[in-house]
Amino acid sequence: MSNKWLTPRLEDYSARYNELVEKADLAQPSEVRWCMVIKPYGFAIRENIKKYLDQMFKNTGHSNAYFPLFIPKSYLSKEADHVEWFAKECAVVTHHRLMNNPDGPGVVVDPSAKLEEELIVRPTSETVIWRTYKDWIQSHRDLPLLINQRANVVRREMRTRVFLRTAEFLRQEGHTAHATEKEAIEEAKLMHEVYDDLMRNFLAIYGVKWVKSESERFAGAEETYTIEAMMQDGKALQSCTSHYLGTNFWDAFDVKFRDEKNEEKSVYATSRWMSTRIMWALIMSHSDDKWLILPPAVAPIHIVIVPIYKKWEDDSKLDNFVMSKIIAPLINGKWTKVPISKLELSTNEYTTDELYQFWESENYNKWKMIIKNEEWVALWYASELKLKYDTSDKSPWRKFSERELKWVPLRIAVWFRDMENWIVEIARRDESEKHLVKIEELKSYVTDNLKDIQISLLKKSMDRIDKNSTEVNTRDEFIFAIDENKFVMAHRDGTTETEELIQQETKATIRCIPLDNKLEDWVCIKTGKPSKQRVLFAKAY
Amino acid sequence: MSNKWLTPRLEDYSARYNELVEKADLAQPSEVRWCMVIKPYGFAIRENIKKYLDQMFKNTGHSNAYFPLFIPKSYLSKEADHVEWFAKECAVVTHHRLMNNPDGPGVVVDPSAKLEEELIVRPTSETVIWRTYKDWIQSHRDLPLLINQRANVVRREMRTRVFLRTAEFLRQEGHTAHATEKEAIEEAKLMHEVYDDLMRNFLAIYGVKWVKSESERFAGAEETYTIEAMMQDGKALQSCTSHYLGTNFWDAFDVKFRDEKNEEKSVYATSRWMSTRIMWALIMSHSDDKWLILPPAVAPIHIVIVPIYKKWEDDSKLDNFVMSKIIAPLINGKWTKVPISKLELSTNEYTTDELYQFWESENYNKWKMIIKNEEWVALWYASELKLKYDTSDKSPWRKFSERELKWVPLRIAVWFRDMENWIVEIARRDESEKHLVKIEELKSYVTDNLKDIQISLLKKSMDRIDKNSTEVNTRDEFIFAIDENKFVMAHRDGTTETEELIQQETKATIRCIPLDNKLEDWVCIKTGKPSKQRVLFAKAY
Repeated sequence: MSNKWLTPRLEDYSARYNELVEKADLAQPSEVRWCMVIKPYGFAIRENIKKYLDQMFKNTGHSNAYFPLFIPKSYLSKEADHVEWFAKECAVVTHHRLMNNPDGPGVVVDPSAKLEEELIVRPTSETVIWRTYKDWIQSHRDLPLLINQRANVVRREMRTRVFLRTAEFLRQEGHTAHATEKEAIEEAKLMHEVYDDLMRNFLAIYGVKWVKSESERFAGAEETYTIEAMMQDGKALQSCTSHYLGTNFWDAFDVKFRDEKNEEKSVYATSRWMSTRIMWALIMSHSDDKWLILPPAVAPIHIVIVPIYKKWEDDSKLDNFVMSKIIAPLINGKWTKVPISKLELSTNEYTTDELYQFWESENYNKWKMIIKNEEWVALWYASELKLKYDTSDKSPWRKFSERELKWVPLRIAVWFRDMENWIVEIARRDESEKHLVKIEELKSYVTDNLKDIQISLLKKSMDRIDKNSTEVNTRDEFIFAIDENKFVMAHRDGTTETEELIQQETKATIRCIPLDNKLEDWVCIKTGKPSKQRVLFAKAY
Repeated sequence: MSNKWLTPRLEDYSARYNELVEKADLAQPSEVRWCMVIKPYGFAIRENIKKYLDQMFKNTGHSNAYFPLFIPKSYLSKEADHVEWFAKECAVVTHHRLMNNPDGPGVVVDPSAKLEEELIVRPTSETVIWRTYKDWIQSHRDLPLLINQRANVVRREMRTRVFLRTAEFLRQEGHTAHATEKEAIEEAKLMHEVYDDLMRNFLAIYGVKWVKSESERFAGAEETYTIEAMMQDGKALQSCTSHYLGTNFWDAFDVKFRDEKNEEKSVYATSRWMSTRIMWALIMSHSDDKWLILPPAVAPIHIVIVPIYKKWEDDSKLDNFVMSKIIAPLINGKWTKVPISKLELSTNEYTTDELYQFWESENYNKWKMIIKNEEWVALWYASELKLKYDTSDKSPWRKFSERELKWVPLRIAVWFRDMENWIVEIARRDESEKHLVKIEELKSYVTDNLKDIQISLLKKSMDRIDKNSTEVNTRDEFIFAIDENKFVMAHRDGTTETEELIQQETKATIRCIPLDNKLEDWVCIKTGKPSKQRVLFAKAY
């Protein structure tokens, strides 16, 4: 079944992406230059990702904190690599006041309100965070310091694209301080594992998990751990990075600590981040020619239940069947609903009996008014199964197609004839046939199928890399494989110059260098100079 | 028991606040002008507040979304009141690039990189959100639109104070659109109830919940619903506001919709926000002369368990007792712990048996290394009871005093002698005596006492307003009562001029106007002109 709305993905991958993001209501470019608006459905996906990642950080001993949006210009000059990367294109605050335009309507910048020192809207927070750490770190007892921040950052981008490249984007950034190099490197590696866990087990994206070459490392990093995912056109996407930063940068900010022997020592640092860019990877990794596809772990809604009302039949009979025989068992009798009075605000769990009383009471209509589309929302807290019972007056066909575009993994249609037989009709979003399922088997059917969808998406992502990766030994083989948009393991002589030559010729860059692959004697595919180790080349976003 | 570190609260309320915020590790001013750093302990409190409020918004049908940080200058000029309030003191981005200083070291603003139109760092988001709503709202089917955003906003403040007044602060802001005036007013009132619910039931702050006078309304609002809390010095703090905004503002942005009859209609709007300022209210409302006091509902840790190790006794025996007889029953056997390998990252719940195996394994030391202070952290998911088992090598006395300053509501000390008798020693932070509690009664003791602390704080807050509020009938009575820092119900003639005169004379402002108090014939305490209704006057922060 093809979808006449959407451009086939291999025809124009970019056009299709824009259509998906728009039609599934995920996000949109803003009229404000370089910025995006993240719409409620897209934001709900992001919130799910954030929730998992935040818990993982807390489980590994990190705390959240918040640091200033603005960086004084002088901070950026403190570390040479840093200023080179970040100070060039950025948002510069120069004034603190507007005034009425003396020459006409509107407001203009008040020239008398010039700041003594310009403030840069943070492109990244190392400088302002480490200026603060200087106050916090005095002794070995203050270490390790394990902090995570959720922040908006701004880097000017000329060609913006929603989620992938916008000037303002949202991200978490972790910044840790350690007493020893060993501990700092272990932290950077552990966070590499945390990201990989999130990507595999929640986002269902399998990535190659190695280190960056020197030229592709983060400014100031001594080692950058990366995860490179393969998009459906074969290009790589750097999905997240974890950095071991050594001591140089923090020496510039004069951060030192006194060890057990009261000797002054340098502090070892790491940093890492994952941004709204991961939304781009999520959308592009799974969606097919038909529509958006989301792993159940991050989908805002898991099941939409659509009653098929007939004019000559009693709606409330069907509603009661859905509530008592379908929803209640799925959510273990725990409901969340919109309150109608302040008394109900704090206690948002109800038994099914209470809910029936409510359903039948005069308050029902009041309550209906508040929620758009009059949809029931129920959360199953334990496993976080999210249901939507769509009782709006749209046609069933329209309810199906809306949900299909937004990729709700399972759809249950409830007919009068099935109600009498205690069965329901379920369709998986990734299959075309419908299934009739007995009420008593519903819960295990739902759980099994959501799990199955999650796993099958991860498997597809693994298969893609598996089928589209190759080892080559010569320049000709290399060019041919890169032309076919493959992940290519090849030898190179290890110089930045050669890396640049290869990129000019083929557009491929070194995506990452294996951490533990076997060494072998061979020659660089470009220069013929000796090489000991293959690295991963690919074209990249 | 007095605390020699802290200034008595009635001696210098402000100095004491700064000390509390610093000593309890909540936040600090930043070297970056006008900005603050929210430290991990302070941020954990904020996260708890955010979690409750976010759930309440979701329960009332709202979705989260995200809009741009920058507002083009021309947006701010669209609505007259708006520009008057916000455009005057703000952070203005004029350039998009820095360059190496041609005349010396460092970087300077690149004069060739001037923006065509200046961007303002959002002081509030109405303009940029409603520019977007214009695209989203076409028909009555698109309404109501119920959106909440979490954002950092910037308003220049000359005299900054952490949490109370800083240029950059964090807040949620809700912006809704409705088809009818009636529905919009109901929404503004419902959100007023939501805030009140949060304040009473979670923050344990009782506030006066009425509407603002015309001169104190939000720019552009037709009605502003406010909650005015009373601080311990008797001054009022406007804790949160919910606004009914009518149609004028959105008409300026040309947002219209077509109703059921396909006629073009204006959209009715509301907005509301609660910011990091609520942290100030929380700290100042409860803390006594000794230290910080937090309601258990928002405290980052509920119970600290301190083992009293003796050199000649076996630590692991005590540890095992604490784990199996104290912690395990309290948390229903559900643990969160720091993982030592990636395999453990996704499954962070363990049975007590698994935890013992882990405790006894060689991995224990590896794991200990990761968490600062080697503290066990266990979460009881169901009731969210947060425990800390402090096994660090600090002295018990130091562990007690650190926790006291941060106000952990309950403290359990575990002695060898008590272990043998299956009892533990518990102290409530708001009482001086210790209690011996039998292990089998521990769980109910903990639950009851946390609930009791929460309720007693709310009661204190209610009593404060009760005892320090008064009705007056004459100018002399008014001046006397305001001098005593009371909440004063008095008649006034309803003009903005009289309001200003009263403020000049007494520093008191109208905090709010009752929604449904009885009307009576009397005269203005200032001008003697007729008045029908008493309003609430007070000095305010």
